[in-house]
Amino acid sequence: MATRTATHTIGIDLGGTKILTGIVNARNEMVATVKTPTNAQEGAQGVLDRIIVSLDQALVQSNLSKSDIRGVGIGVPGVFDAASGVIIRITNIDGMENVNMAQLLSTWHGGKIKTVLSNDVRVATWGEYQLGAGKGHKNMVAIWVGTGIGGGIILNGKVLEGSRGSAGEVGHVVTLADGPFAAGAGVRGGIEALASRTAIERDLRRAIADGTATILPQILAKNENQLKSGVLRKAVRKGDALTISVLERAAYYLGLHCASVVNMLDPEIVVYGGGLMENLGDWMIERIAPVARRNFINKSNLDKISLVATSLGEPAGALGAALLARG
Amino acid sequence: MATRTATHTIGIDLGGTKILTGIVNARNEMVATVKTPTNAQEGAQGVLDRIIVSLDQALVQSNLSKSDIRGVGIGVPGVFDAASGVIIRITNIDGMENVNMAQLLSTWHGGKIKTVLSNDVRVATWGEYQLGAGKGHKNMVAIWVGTGIGGGIILNGKVLEGSRGSAGEVGHVVTLADGPFAAGAGVRGGIEALASRTAIERDLRRAIADGTATILPQILAKNENQLKSGVLRKAVRKGDALTISVLERAAYYLGLHCASVVNMLDPEIVVYGGGLMENLGDWMIERIAPVARRNFINKSNLDKISLVATSLGEPAGALGAALLARG
Repeated sequence: MATRTATHTIGIDLGGTKILTGIVNARNEMVATVKTPTNAQEGAQGVLDRIIVSLDQALVQSNLSKSDIRGVGIGVPGVFDAASGVIIRITNIDGMENVNMAQLLSTWHGGKIKTVLSNDVRVATWGEYQLGAGKGHKNMVAIWVGTGIGGGIILNGKVLEGSRGSAGEVGHVVTLADGPFAAGAGVRGGIEALASRTAIERDLRRAIADGTATILPQILAKNENQLKSGVLRKAVRKGDALTISVLERAAYYLGLHCASVVNMLDPEIVVYGGGLMENLGDWMIERIAPVARRNFINKSNLDKISLVATSLGEPAGALGAALLARG
Repeated sequence: MATRTATHTIGIDLGGTKILTGIVNARNEMVATVKTPTNAQEGAQGVLDRIIVSLDQALVQSNLSKSDIRGVGIGVPGVFDAASGVIIRITNIDGMENVNMAQLLSTWHGGKIKTVLSNDVRVATWGEYQLGAGKGHKNMVAIWVGTGIGGGIILNGKVLEGSRGSAGEVGHVVTLADGPFAAGAGVRGGIEALASRTAIERDLRRAIADGTATILPQILAKNENQLKSGVLRKAVRKGDALTISVLERAAYYLGLHCASVVNMLDPEIVVYGGGLMENLGDWMIERIAPVARRNFINKSNLDKISLVATSLGEPAGALGAALLARG
């Protein structure tokens, strides 16, 4: 075999429900993607095993060998030490504590590679900034609406890390003081407690329990009773009044929240991603944007601020992680 | 007269009610301060005349001549073009439109000087960052609570300007959706509408009109019926239950708002200034801090985040403007 220069990098997006692993070539093209369920309930070792399998599968899929890979980046939904490449804790995965991810990835590769460990939301923000909706801008806020609401802030072309590495938690901006409690560790009345898929599901199930007319139970039965974003999209398409009114309320709060973020940071673009936005992005943004614009404090050059849905969709995280691993 | 190197700079804080002009020497000491009422109702020419008079008075006070001055900075409460040094508009001062401030200051000086035009809140933030409570930190948010609520954000040692020059508007973070309307251009339910001195006065006067027991009318009569921050301080000292409860409510909202800001930006320090905080800073922060800390999403290294009152007080703006003019 002729000696080749390693030109590809791998990005891993370790999510609460799925692991997405992708290989990116030197032209920023995704040449392989492997999607595996996280099965967090099986604990850390099972998850780590599935990550390694996904790496091998991605190589097979792209017809590449380990020697073609110069780096691996991974975005994780937990606490980590970027410098040492150690996952300190991922609350939702049992036993995922003090895992030396950098070592694990290097051992898998067997050679000298660059490894990068970062936050799941931040790698997705970086992907969207470099190759997606944020391309060509210098100041961007990304808001990821899914089970929770996370975010990433890019200022002057750099990800804002913050003094303790935790900047960008846009989901925990209190938007309705004394409002609903958030699931998990979120703050009361924060936008996550008002407009995440979890909050939307809470409001819908409560209304169903109260006997509000809706076609949701029908659609839910076909979907193993899981109220995922795809179910919401179907209900909206069918004109379900309850779903539409709950989503419109969420969009209203997201609009107020968008204004808060823009008034503080004055970015050029706000990008919405995450499960809910991948399914209902344009519909939601049509409702978010007018509320936001009414509440922007700086009314000049309003056209300079774009509110858009993610253009990369689900692979944004893996792509961003792969780009970070290029170094 | 022997030739001397100009080592001093002048800073002007043009406020809605007063103009504060100060001269700063090379050791960052304020060697002269002149305080003049703005008398905004007299219009632009009157205000500009008073600024020029204050410059001359500051020179006399410090026993300096124009040749000792190497630069003049000014912070204004309005829209401006920093590059050309032109005030585009100050809404509260009649006729203050398209005023070439850089030219005016250069003409006053007669020689070659550096002139800097910036935002009133941002110059105060810069002063506090360089010489006040923010000294020694790299990431700071300043929140100025007075007639309105303004703010400044310092990230990695630089003032965040934003894509349209309007970053830092922390007063217009929606904290109580569908809450009270703000005076002026502020957003509904924004922290300015909940906790500025104007909002506090609104709530107090409403309660007085409703017949709530309070010693405020007594204190007000002695103060020409003006409900300034000094009056609030007196009422708190005398244990006035109404004033205390309204201020505690404002502090509660400021605490939630602080958490929102910290969750987004993860600074090392949040500094509170402005009229209300100059009078009641420690009392307010004792009530703001526990609410904020309960709602910080990153619970680690909580001791790394300080919440403190301005240490420079009123001269922060003039000092910051003077430092900016040093160049």
